[in-house]
Amino acid sequence: MTTTTTDDPRQVTVLGLGDMGSAIARTLVDRGYRTTVWNRTASKSEPLVAAGATAAATAAEAVAASPLVVICLLDSTAVDEVLGAVETAVAGKVLVNVTSGSPAQARENERWATERGAEYIDGKIMGDPPYVGTPNIMFPFSGSRSAFQAHEPVLQELGTIAYHGEDAGLAAVEFMGQVAMGYEMLIGFLHTLKLVQAEGVDVVAFTERVAGSVAAYPPLLTMMGKAIKSGEYAPDLGPLNVQAALMDDMIDHRESIGVEAVRMREVKELMDRRIAEGHGDQGFSSLFELLPKRR
Amino acid sequence: MTTTTTDDPRQVTVLGLGDMGSAIARTLVDRGYRTTVWNRTASKSEPLVAAGATAAATAAEAVAASPLVVICLLDSTAVDEVLGAVETAVAGKVLVNVTSGSPAQARENERWATERGAEYIDGKIMGDPPYVGTPNIMFPFSGSRSAFQAHEPVLQELGTIAYHGEDAGLAAVEFMGQVAMGYEMLIGFLHTLKLVQAEGVDVVAFTERVAGSVAAYPPLLTMMGKAIKSGEYAPDLGPLNVQAALMDDMIDHRESIGVEAVRMREVKELMDRRIAEGHGDQGFSSLFELLPKRR
Repeated sequence: MTTTTTDDPRQVTVLGLGDMGSAIARTLVDRGYRTTVWNRTASKSEPLVAAGATAAATAAEAVAASPLVVICLLDSTAVDEVLGAVETAVAGKVLVNVTSGSPAQARENERWATERGAEYIDGKIMGDPPYVGTPNIMFPFSGSRSAFQAHEPVLQELGTIAYHGEDAGLAAVEFMGQVAMGYEMLIGFLHTLKLVQAEGVDVVAFTERVAGSVAAYPPLLTMMGKAIKSGEYAPDLGPLNVQAALMDDMIDHRESIGVEAVRMREVKELMDRRIAEGHGDQGFSSLFELLPKRR
Repeated sequence: MTTTTTDDPRQVTVLGLGDMGSAIARTLVDRGYRTTVWNRTASKSEPLVAAGATAAATAAEAVAASPLVVICLLDSTAVDEVLGAVETAVAGKVLVNVTSGSPAQARENERWATERGAEYIDGKIMGDPPYVGTPNIMFPFSGSRSAFQAHEPVLQELGTIAYHGEDAGLAAVEFMGQVAMGYEMLIGFLHTLKLVQAEGVDVVAFTERVAGSVAAYPPLLTMMGKAIKSGEYAPDLGPLNVQAALMDDMIDHRESIGVEAVRMREVKELMDRRIAEGHGDQGFSSLFELLPKRR
């Protein structure tokens, strides 16, 4: 096994060879990087070694091999374990951790790395392993700006990348926000299909129509985002005074056919409160003012 | 005042001259229709008469004036009152009711009209009065197919129209479904902005990014609609076994920063149930199977 400690920018280590870690390592090998790999279960490295990677016997040896170390493990617990095992090897290295985890965990990892003389970049992955190496997978990054800039060419090999700021937690925030928006839409979509199906409508035909409507929402979101930032709430979907009556109709209808109305009741309650506060002339976006504040 | 009972297809009556009814009447006058109008408060008809409409003294007189009667009132209660007042005048007429109301109310109106020798079309309006007469306002219709076909040219003057079937309730179902999907997305969007703002992210910058993501969802919705219709649930966003761990992370994160997690908890609970039933290899769309059934 060959390891080296020179700062060759075309030299990368990948810790963790699950589906995603393997896809990252394979992409780097294919693009001509001298790639060192390590996995707790060593057999996972075999196809990568066959493709041209070098397998390290220990995680510490793998870290020593390259200036840039990509960490892609199962979860934060696995990250904590592996970092503990490589603690004496990380000084002078750039750690890029793309394991799933919270903003707080990313900030804690950064503190840990900085204290040991390493630079830390946190990354999250929005997409599936087969798309690694294509523009169809997104990697938000955050943390050390200088380290990101120095290694941007390598990171660009992985997919569509974006840098969100020095706060190492920001990549996880971006991930949490984007994924939450997706699940909000999709669970609302399932309940909506239940509604139209209960009323005898073909779910595929309705989906085609509602997909067309969803495609038209981005400009409205942009308008609402600006209203929320400025605090100037135009009557976007119509004034709340008018929208509130519609919510009553929707709740009554859903109750009459046995479809859940959790969000519709929440929206109605927020509208009623906003109207009671004298803002019935404002739009939907003004409900933002009533959402729970940070503890 | 001139009224006539001949079946001139370019002769239309509009009952109700609020903002929307006035916009409809004005559009018809401008397009050359002989338009008779009526409103409980007669002064509302003045600008329309100035533009070329004829004001009827009573609702019954207005109904008698045209083969096609568009009803655009405040709510279903107002519709019931006006229909009661014109009961003896509706035989042989086509009633197009675009007042907001439920599928059940539409079906009841159709029954009432049929019993009195009238044909009934229910319509709903997705858009604002200034857009009447442009493609940027949508009118789903349902009810009598023959009446719809006979009067389609007039209805097309109003905006983008679609016929959803003989069941008079279907226009209201379409409206309820489309509007629900919008509110689901938008309240989810507000909570997501609260999340990113609590973590120090600029809401306008995030909105731009998430708007780009939303624009990419329609193909996923289409795929999920087909899965739900067929009952064959591919691992769309990844298998539920994997997605469920992500939901835990999201719930923990939200709790740690004081952002509500209603939908995320619901999704997690549905995932856990689906996995427990042995379907952990299926995708998000399979959660549809667990949503409450119609009473």
